Amino acid sequence: MILSALLTSVGINLGLCLLYFTLFSILKKLPGNVYVYAPRLVAEGKARQDVDFNLERLIPSVNWVKKAWQVTEDELLSISGFDAIVMMRIIIFSLRVFTFAAVVGIFVLLPFNYMGNQLSFDFIDLSTKSLESFSISNVDDGSGWLWIHFGAVYVFTVFVCYLLYTEYNSLSLKRVEYFYSSKPKPHQFTVLVRSIPVSSARSINETVDAFFSERYPSTYLSHSIVRRTNRIKKLVDNGDKIHRKLTRLKSSNHSQQKFTRSGFLGLFGKRVNVLDHYEKKLENIEENVRTEQSSIFGKEVAAAFVCFKTRFSAATALHIRQAVNPTEWVTELAPDPQDVHWPFFSASFIRIWFSSLVVIIACILLTVLFLAPVFIVQGLANLEQLETWFPFLENILSITFISEVITGFLPSFILQLFLSLVPPVMIMLSSMQGYIALSQIEKSACIKVLIFTIWNIFFANVLSGSALSRVDIILEPKKIPEILAIGVPGQATFFISYVVTSGWTKTSEDLFRLLPLLLSFVKRKFLGYPDDDFEVPSVPYHSEIPRILLFGLLGVTYFFLAPLILPFIVIYYCLAYIVYRNQLLHLYAPKYETGGKLWPVVHDSTIFSLILMHVIAIGIFGLKQLPLASSLIIPLPVLTLIFNSYCHRRFLPIFKSYSAESLVKKDRDEQADRTMNEFRNKLTSAYEDPNLMPVQYSSDNQGLRSPLLGSAQA
Amino acid sequence: MILSALLTSVGINLGLCLLYFTLFSILKKLPGNVYVYAPRLVAEGKARQDVDFNLERLIPSVNWVKKAWQVTEDELLSISGFDAIVMMRIIIFSLRVFTFAAVVGIFVLLPFNYMGNQLSFDFIDLSTKSLESFSISNVDDGSGWLWIHFGAVYVFTVFVCYLLYTEYNSLSLKRVEYFYSSKPKPHQFTVLVRSIPVSSARSINETVDAFFSERYPSTYLSHSIVRRTNRIKKLVDNGDKIHRKLTRLKSSNHSQQKFTRSGFLGLFGKRVNVLDHYEKKLENIEENVRTEQSSIFGKEVAAAFVCFKTRFSAATALHIRQAVNPTEWVTELAPDPQDVHWPFFSASFIRIWFSSLVVIIACILLTVLFLAPVFIVQGLANLEQLETWFPFLENILSITFISEVITGFLPSFILQLFLSLVPPVMIMLSSMQGYIALSQIEKSACIKVLIFTIWNIFFANVLSGSALSRVDIILEPKKIPEILAIGVPGQATFFISYVVTSGWTKTSEDLFRLLPLLLSFVKRKFLGYPDDDFEVPSVPYHSEIPRILLFGLLGVTYFFLAPLILPFIVIYYCLAYIVYRNQLLHLYAPKYETGGKLWPVVHDSTIFSLILMHVIAIGIFGLKQLPLASSLIIPLPVLTLIFNSYCHRRFLPIFKSYSAESLVKKDRDEQADRTMNEFRNKLTSAYEDPNLMPVQYSSDNQGLRSPLLGSAQA
Repeated sequence: MILSALLTSVGINLGLCLLYFTLFSILKKLPGNVYVYAPRLVAEGKARQDVDFNLERLIPSVNWVKKAWQVTEDELLSISGFDAIVMMRIIIFSLRVFTFAAVVGIFVLLPFNYMGNQLSFDFIDLSTKSLESFSISNVDDGSGWLWIHFGAVYVFTVFVCYLLYTEYNSLSLKRVEYFYSSKPKPHQFTVLVRSIPVSSARSINETVDAFFSERYPSTYLSHSIVRRTNRIKKLVDNGDKIHRKLTRLKSSNHSQQKFTRSGFLGLFGKRVNVLDHYEKKLENIEENVRTEQSSIFGKEVAAAFVCFKTRFSAATALHIRQAVNPTEWVTELAPDPQDVHWPFFSASFIRIWFSSLVVIIACILLTVLFLAPVFIVQGLANLEQLETWFPFLENILSITFISEVITGFLPSFILQLFLSLVPPVMIMLSSMQGYIALSQIEKSACIKVLIFTIWNIFFANVLSGSALSRVDIILEPKKIPEILAIGVPGQATFFISYVVTSGWTKTSEDLFRLLPLLLSFVKRKFLGYPDDDFEVPSVPYHSEIPRILLFGLLGVTYFFLAPLILPFIVIYYCLAYIVYRNQLLHLYAPKYETGGKLWPVVHDSTIFSLILMHVIAIGIFGLKQLPLASSLIIPLPVLTLIFNSYCHRRFLPIFKSYSAESLVKKDRDEQADRTMNEFRNKLTSAYEDPNLMPVQYSSDNQGLRSPLLGSAQA
Repeated sequence: MILSALLTSVGINLGLCLLYFTLFSILKKLPGNVYVYAPRLVAEGKARQDVDFNLERLIPSVNWVKKAWQVTEDELLSISGFDAIVMMRIIIFSLRVFTFAAVVGIFVLLPFNYMGNQLSFDFIDLSTKSLESFSISNVDDGSGWLWIHFGAVYVFTVFVCYLLYTEYNSLSLKRVEYFYSSKPKPHQFTVLVRSIPVSSARSINETVDAFFSERYPSTYLSHSIVRRTNRIKKLVDNGDKIHRKLTRLKSSNHSQQKFTRSGFLGLFGKRVNVLDHYEKKLENIEENVRTEQSSIFGKEVAAAFVCFKTRFSAATALHIRQAVNPTEWVTELAPDPQDVHWPFFSASFIRIWFSSLVVIIACILLTVLFLAPVFIVQGLANLEQLETWFPFLENILSITFISEVITGFLPSFILQLFLSLVPPVMIMLSSMQGYIALSQIEKSACIKVLIFTIWNIFFANVLSGSALSRVDIILEPKKIPEILAIGVPGQATFFISYVVTSGWTKTSEDLFRLLPLLLSFVKRKFLGYPDDDFEVPSVPYHSEIPRILLFGLLGVTYFFLAPLILPFIVIYYCLAYIVYRNQLLHLYAPKYETGGKLWPVVHDSTIFSLILMHVIAIGIFGLKQLPLASSLIIPLPVLTLIFNSYCHRRFLPIFKSYSAESLVKKDRDEQADRTMNEFRNKLTSAYEDPNLMPVQYSSDNQGLRSPLLGSAQA
């Protein structure tokens, strides 16, 4: 790619960013859009809604940037929880790393690259000169200048490791502090027990009771047996939907909708009053739910939430293997009650183990073979094929402009479509793995999407050939450095434009929320939804964090190869810093709290990037006929791995569970607290399945729910 | 190798075996030799010593075989502990596997191999026909008969996995049973705490006390601080040695030894009475020990043995991370008091972590580069070199017979010498890794020796070229099946003779104990040692188990390649069965009890052998132009690994620690037991360093020792 082409791409995307920013700063001030841009504030009742119109509103402003900038970390912590802090820390950490990298890269490495003569160009016009002259490819083979690159690799690695260490340290301290300052939560006192052995003589209820009262006589509090409620959940969901529809119909003024037909899809059968029709349906559902709920008492699953009087005893039950047979009475951390994900719940050890295996294999296949179907669909969806499929489009497709747009746009659209399906598919796969909590599912999906992204964005572009030939390369570890050293530098310009489009523009788009904005507009204006029908989204960690980390990987690997990419990455992180802060303040509400369990993923990903950089460096110095430098790099990945192993031992356990010291301290601090008794009474019913609450959709009660099943034992 | 050469080798070794067996059955009945052949019985006072001589004694008998055969597993368990049972189970398991393999191999595979025509021979004389005609190499390329080998690989893998599962299952049940029936032992109630944070305000003693009384107020019993006693240990060892010498001198009648000189090595200085001289020395040592012991109270190490009232609470302290910082208050299972290994004890987390790293690197280097120095020494120690070094030997070396013996014998002698150094070196390396218990050191050394043996016996023979070129092969995983398929079948005859020499003869030699017999004879007859100066050896698991497992590896990998090796392996295991049973009954005394923690090593090694067999099968079927069979083998290693992962989850935790169920049951069973109070009182002093006991070598007290330091707190 020549410089002018890159400049054009940067220009277009910069324009798009500015457009999105301007539109956002105007549209967010329009009254109806508060549900799109600050649903979280609305839900918390904090959104001011000025109804009177004034001109000032139509002037774009940067006020929101100032607001987002001014929020302190502690404020953010109290608003969005610890996971949001970790998310921001990833960006701050990356900003530090790449500011340093950019300074070194642009002011030290770039001049030496430019002064090289390895690539011969026409020197008349800078704009036609290939961007490659700014990369390491332009340094003469065997030149002594390469030792500067060598030094830069060492210095950069040490700097990143230092930052990784301090960040891990500070976050682990903050995590413990956050735990000390947190209010008592049910999941801290509870463990989930699966694979309870079933005997015909006793019910599961009695078995659990006997087992834990015998082993923890002084600290065992109560338990709730898990029940299969899939069918009730379906009914209740359906009922909720109809109930919402009914409420909407009652409040709306469209009289033409008041009648429908009772048959299939409201198209056949006799004409009935819509309100009566839905109310009758709701009554039916209520009846069904009640019948199901009364029969559910027998449908016990061999799993239970077991609550203890103190956090320390819950931790004891968690960490010590309970039964002689390690596949029975398997304990794990209980998630927060609202974090529990029921649909794929599986009680048996064998089933969880087996589904994990299947999911891992499915993930590997999806990751490795992903591009194959994309290519097939792209091949099928060419212009001629479209004409044979949809003959009526023939006239339209023959217009040059439209055909050009389709030819240029369709393949990339198909790729984007397939890519956008990946995070939900990974979420689905992770949920089939038998995790009980949404947070665990999302963390696991995050790792899967990260691996997927690195393989299908980075390696697919760097290594030519089919998916299987790329796997082949992995099977020949000796050749990897050379192959990477040949492939990676050539893709520098591609990745620069990738940072600009997928980084800058995508982030501004996230701020502008084009799709939700349109959806909300259509819903309100055409479908007659009331204003207060909106959802507060939660942070989509599983799709955002892999994206942020991919840019980190690009920056680290290209740092000494093609430093020109670094300023673009720094600008991306600046944008992301402001945009995510704004979103965390106004848009996203935390759905759960993991206490920053995602940081170890970030740490490992950064270490992987460093090792990848070292491997490429080994290859590059080999290619550049500086074998000594190539050999002298080898200790670096080894030392990095040793550093990583130290960090794992030093910090990882803190992110896995709390220590006896913390737990006992927290338990003791609350001993004098009188509200704890009340909390413990509530604890016994905290893990009741919400689907077992009685359902009533009478017009004045908005789906009243109260505990139906008392806990098994107090 | 041709058949006749192999038969000669087998004949010679068979003769040696018979000779050793005969000599053993005669010599063991001679009165003085009871200290060599049954020291364990002597130590337990169970050895009958008939002093009167009769002719019957000189007739070889197989009585001992009958005795060794008749012992039941339960008897062996009560005599030699659970680890001995595991050792015997390895042999029984191998016997089952290879009896099945031999039947399939000899009666199904061998005829097909022999009927092949791939290798062309002179068919006139069977004895000159290469043994290769019995191996898979002789089957025609692309022949359908190869599917029989294919089927055999599948059937054999399923059979071995089935046996592995039942064995793991039965041993894990037996381990729990053994735990239930065991007497209370100090280590069950104790954890070792390292990396105690040191503060200047409080002593370690107070810190430990405060930490555990706060966290385990109702179950914390006491603790013993670890102290640096290296210097005292040296003094005490020296004193013990002199004391033994003195006792020997007093009881012996050699008057010529009663005088010595007081100077260097007893050669210079004034002539003194030996007895007086040593007694004075002993007094000096006693004095020094006392001074050191009184000053040791300050030399606290940041580590302690912490005892609890119940096993369950000790397990709690073990499994839950104690401090916020995972590198402080690190807990681990305490070993039995007599199992504690002090010399390399290290309290700090960083030092243990770092020394582990160094040891791992040292082990890898030793394993990979081992053969290089051997070759160098072998190259140096040729005949001409010897003549230049020792000119006076020139005449002797010129005798053809002697020069032939040296040329033939010296290289193998040098290799054996280096090989025999490996187990002690590995023990030393493992002890530097920071393990606290001899049992842990020996288990870790066992794994190291196993890897060393597989690499330097199996792979060094199979893969030609230098050590580094072998490492190179490992770095190209795609080529491994082919390289192994070419290399492995060719070494079948070498490994048959290896089984015969290193298996049959070495095992009979172990029974005969040639070296200890000679040593004991020389000591008693010439050096005037008293009869009762003998040591009861413990089972050298770290050198024996790798040997037993190597033959397993050979059997598994050659099962479908060259089934002729299988009968030799079956005979080896039969020999080993009888010999080890005899040794466990009469010779070895258990030094510690791990509860069979070595079985998982055996399991993993067998799984490795199976995978290796599959890899070779993939290569062989590829070479034999049956690519379909080659591809159809691929699921087999995958399924085997899945099976292994299941076994790991199902059984491994049982071998790592005991469950809450077992611990609570055991604690409760003993609640009514009155002796428990007495046991708990003793517990507080169980972990005192033996070197801190007062020392007294007065003539009537045989080195009296009694607790000097009370425990820190009851």
